[in-house]
Amino acid sequence: MDSYVGTGDEWTVAGRKFASRLVVGTGKYKDLPTTAAAIEASGAEMVTVAVRRVNLSDRNAPMLQDYVSPQRYTYLPNTAGCFTADEAVRTLRLAREAGGWNLVKLEVLGPAPTLYPDMPATFEAAKALIKDGFEVMVYCSDDPIAAKRLEEMGCVAIMPLGAPIGSGLGVQNPLMIQMIIEQAKVPVLVDAGVGTAYDATFAMELGCDAVLVNSAIAMANDPVLMARAMKAGVEAGRLAFRAGRIPRRGFASASSPMTGLIG
Amino acid sequence: MDSYVGTGDEWTVAGRKFASRLVVGTGKYKDLPTTAAAIEASGAEMVTVAVRRVNLSDRNAPMLQDYVSPQRYTYLPNTAGCFTADEAVRTLRLAREAGGWNLVKLEVLGPAPTLYPDMPATFEAAKALIKDGFEVMVYCSDDPIAAKRLEEMGCVAIMPLGAPIGSGLGVQNPLMIQMIIEQAKVPVLVDAGVGTAYDATFAMELGCDAVLVNSAIAMANDPVLMARAMKAGVEAGRLAFRAGRIPRRGFASASSPMTGLIG
Amino acid sequence: MDSYVGTGDEWTVAGRKFASRLVVGTGKYKDLPTTAAAIEASGAEMVTVAVRRVNLSDRNAPMLQDYVSPQRYTYLPNTAGCFTADEAVRTLRLAREAGGWNLVKLEVLGPAPTLYPDMPATFEAAKALIKDGFEVMVYCSDDPIAAKRLEEMGCVAIMPLGAPIGSGLGVQNPLMIQMIIEQAKVPVLVDAGVGTAYDATFAMELGCDAVLVNSAIAMANDPVLMARAMKAGVEAGRLAFRAGRIPRRGFASASSPMTGLIG
Amino acid sequence: MDSYVGTGDEWTVAGRKFASRLVVGTGKYKDLPTTAAAIEASGAEMVTVAVRRVNLSDRNAPMLQDYVSPQRYTYLPNTAGCFTADEAVRTLRLAREAGGWNLVKLEVLGPAPTLYPDMPATFEAAKALIKDGFEVMVYCSDDPIAAKRLEEMGCVAIMPLGAPIGSGLGVQNPLMIQMIIEQAKVPVLVDAGVGTAYDATFAMELGCDAVLVNSAIAMANDPVLMARAMKAGVEAGRLAFRAGRIPRRGFASASSPMTGLIG
Repeated sequence: MDSYVGTGDEWTVAGRKFASRLVVGTGKYKDLPTTAAAIEASGAEMVTVAVRRVNLSDRNAPMLQDYVSPQRYTYLPNTAGCFTADEAVRTLRLAREAGGWNLVKLEVLGPAPTLYPDMPATFEAAKALIKDGFEVMVYCSDDPIAAKRLEEMGCVAIMPLGAPIGSGLGVQNPLMIQMIIEQAKVPVLVDAGVGTAYDATFAMELGCDAVLVNSAIAMANDPVLMARAMKAGVEAGRLAFRAGRIPRRGFASASSPMTGLIG
Repeated sequence: MDSYVGTGDEWTVAGRKFASRLVVGTGKYKDLPTTAAAIEASGAEMVTVAVRRVNLSDRNAPMLQDYVSPQRYTYLPNTAGCFTADEAVRTLRLAREAGGWNLVKLEVLGPAPTLYPDMPATFEAAKALIKDGFEVMVYCSDDPIAAKRLEEMGCVAIMPLGAPIGSGLGVQNPLMIQMIIEQAKVPVLVDAGVGTAYDATFAMELGCDAVLVNSAIAMANDPVLMARAMKAGVEAGRLAFRAGRIPRRGFASASSPMTGLIG
Repeated sequence: MDSYVGTGDEWTVAGRKFASRLVVGTGKYKDLPTTAAAIEASGAEMVTVAVRRVNLSDRNAPMLQDYVSPQRYTYLPNTAGCFTADEAVRTLRLAREAGGWNLVKLEVLGPAPTLYPDMPATFEAAKALIKDGFEVMVYCSDDPIAAKRLEEMGCVAIMPLGAPIGSGLGVQNPLMIQMIIEQAKVPVLVDAGVGTAYDATFAMELGCDAVLVNSAIAMANDPVLMARAMKAGVEAGRLAFRAGRIPRRGFASASSPMTGLIG
Repeated sequence: MDSYVGTGDEWTVAGRKFASRLVVGTGKYKDLPTTAAAIEASGAEMVTVAVRRVNLSDRNAPMLQDYVSPQRYTYLPNTAGCFTADEAVRTLRLAREAGGWNLVKLEVLGPAPTLYPDMPATFEAAKALIKDGFEVMVYCSDDPIAAKRLEEMGCVAIMPLGAPIGSGLGVQNPLMIQMIIEQAKVPVLVDAGVGTAYDATFAMELGCDAVLVNSAIAMANDPVLMARAMKAGVEAGRLAFRAGRIPRRGFASASSPMTGLIG
């Protein structure tokens, strides 16, 4: 269906294969038709669903499922809006009962404005959910030790933040993201902070398996156009990572501190 | 032929329309078949040809035209290897006689290692070429005053360097590239310095009309894969520019110097 | 004693006042005379001492105290080389018995090459040490939630990493360092990662109370000269922070994405 | 008079020695007493004077000389406000007649908002001034070819912009500044664009001989405090440059693109 992907470069999480390396959110759009159009344009195969915020069951109101087909897209219920481990665990149990979803995205956030992941609560919730049979993709800080432990506990994907949720700042600490990628045996997805297409391209060139984008598409001036931009940006980054870029070369003499100074 | 372009977002130089915003070089490849395959993969419609270096006339040796069809691609003869205005003018006159090419890329370079554009010589050559009826796309420094004067002289496109030729460093001074773009009424192409896909995405998000890439494709580990990456990267940047990105937002209090400090 | 500091701009940790905002390490120098000379040049009043690595008690070998007077400098014993909470706690108890040091720097590290702080072990050790009556300055990740909790537990200073130990990369995530500074009521010191003087200046301009430097001085070509550079750099950053910098101003029109793109 | 400089690390321009590597402007302050206090605090020995804007001769109004002694400070008349070569040459001739100043700073600017140096006009004015016996320190773009030619024409110092005048953005293209420094046999001063202390520290670590600062001091919330910050920042950068910094080290495996990606 796409000329860039689906040609032996799929990635796999919890035994499921995906050609698209762009995972998108379903919230923050002005209405459901726009949500549907942007997701279609993004080429995404997996979408996150904030089960506490999205109408999944009230047949008298517009339902997400009517616009974004659960048959076509892998729904990834998340715990957006949960600030404790308990809330997160309860939310996902209810979601499983309602929709049968076993593959989930766990996020337990600290207070605004950073909404930085609360790591102890995240560990606690991950432990409970894994024990409960969930396949847990986990939003986390860019702490490489924490990332490794979440993997060892049984999380099926590690999702370090690039930058605070909604900030649009792009990957703030590429060194740590790379450390996490290098040591991981499960997929690593950069989550949060992508603001525009080149942030997604950059994240993919670091070597991650996929990128999750929500606000940057939903709140762009033209969400559908930005969805296409993100699709292309993710593909560009993945292809460049695989292609092997030329080295960066400065020209000053060896004795100068240029290598250290050039951004 | 492509789902992203050809949909009303063409750019025009010297009266010719192009859907692809990626211009690629034809040199530095290991052989002509690879050249052809990478150019095909890049989706480019315009290719630069170093007329002093490429075999365009010796029928006993492999000729570029046999691999990269002048019927299919717009050949843009350039003056690579010319270090004076005279050389550059003579080179393009010979090229016009041989191949009829009137739309050309002028570059007059200073010495290695920077190969920085020699601006006085560039002005001199541009003047002579325009007088001679050429349509001149001109490689130049990121000096906004010089860029404006080259346009006023009659150059049909302005091509400021992103970074030194072959450096792969990406756009070093986005502020000046943006100043050039803002004031230009002719197309602006970022030329030189692109090292990988996100550099191309970034350049396009600055608002330029197109990007020229040579070494970053030709010398990548896998040139064909990198050509596809650049194609996608350029499209991503263009789409994101059109889509209108979300603002970047820090979270520190207004009194802090964060805005100034965050890279 | 110094024209820049000591003029009402002291900082206070655990009830002790310091005029110098540069804390330096005592290890990694080629010999003790160089250690002494560099520390003297740095203007530091507080020095970290890796109690497991430095000779503090064998009178038959050169002792740190003979070169860096504990009467003149506040010794800050640290737990370098400790990879578990238990080791860290035991090390500092022994140090207190030996030298009476109550103000300490806790660091519990994960494995090389990052030596990233092991946050759960750090919390565990901090809890035990505080219960034991220690005044704990704590090396930690740039996680603002963790930083706040360490403060709430009773740590007397928060010391987030700028970049991995010994990397010389400077502050990698200024946004998170600023978040930590904004919310802290105890001193915040940027610890680890400073590579050269402008990294120290930059860290201070973020608003932190002090900077800790070790490798960047001890392993510079000329440690004494670099110690003077760091002294000046820290003072420069502090003064600039207090002086209130001019805003950064781009020049492109409001509709362009420049603000977001310029580093 | 200062513990950092005056110890064999002077720089020389047109045969005159200076210990301070910070050159400051005399304009943009709220009043002359503040001008004097900030210059005193900056430790500068050379000050630029916009001869078209500053009162140097009307004895009925406050005169710069009464606050900033020409006996103590080397006055460097500049051509601020000149937009053509003619104006610049005439301005400096008048200044020489009035005050005997032979060492001058030439700047011929293009239009606001960038006030980017007009390089052809700069060359023309430099030629006339040198012929006329002036010792010309020249503000210019970061074009290494132009810089070399200005030196070859006889300019006594090269002063490339770090960023547009008044932008406070810091050095935008350190690579080109380094190229200019590497090839120059006369002093190189980074001029324009410094916004805060760490920009000055950074510029000095690139290896330039001195830094010129005006707006960043004059328009800071507290100009005197910022003058002290700049003094310390310039010294820090110079000392660090001489000391030889540790290399920057990432930790990812050799096959990864980290070196290229880390800013």
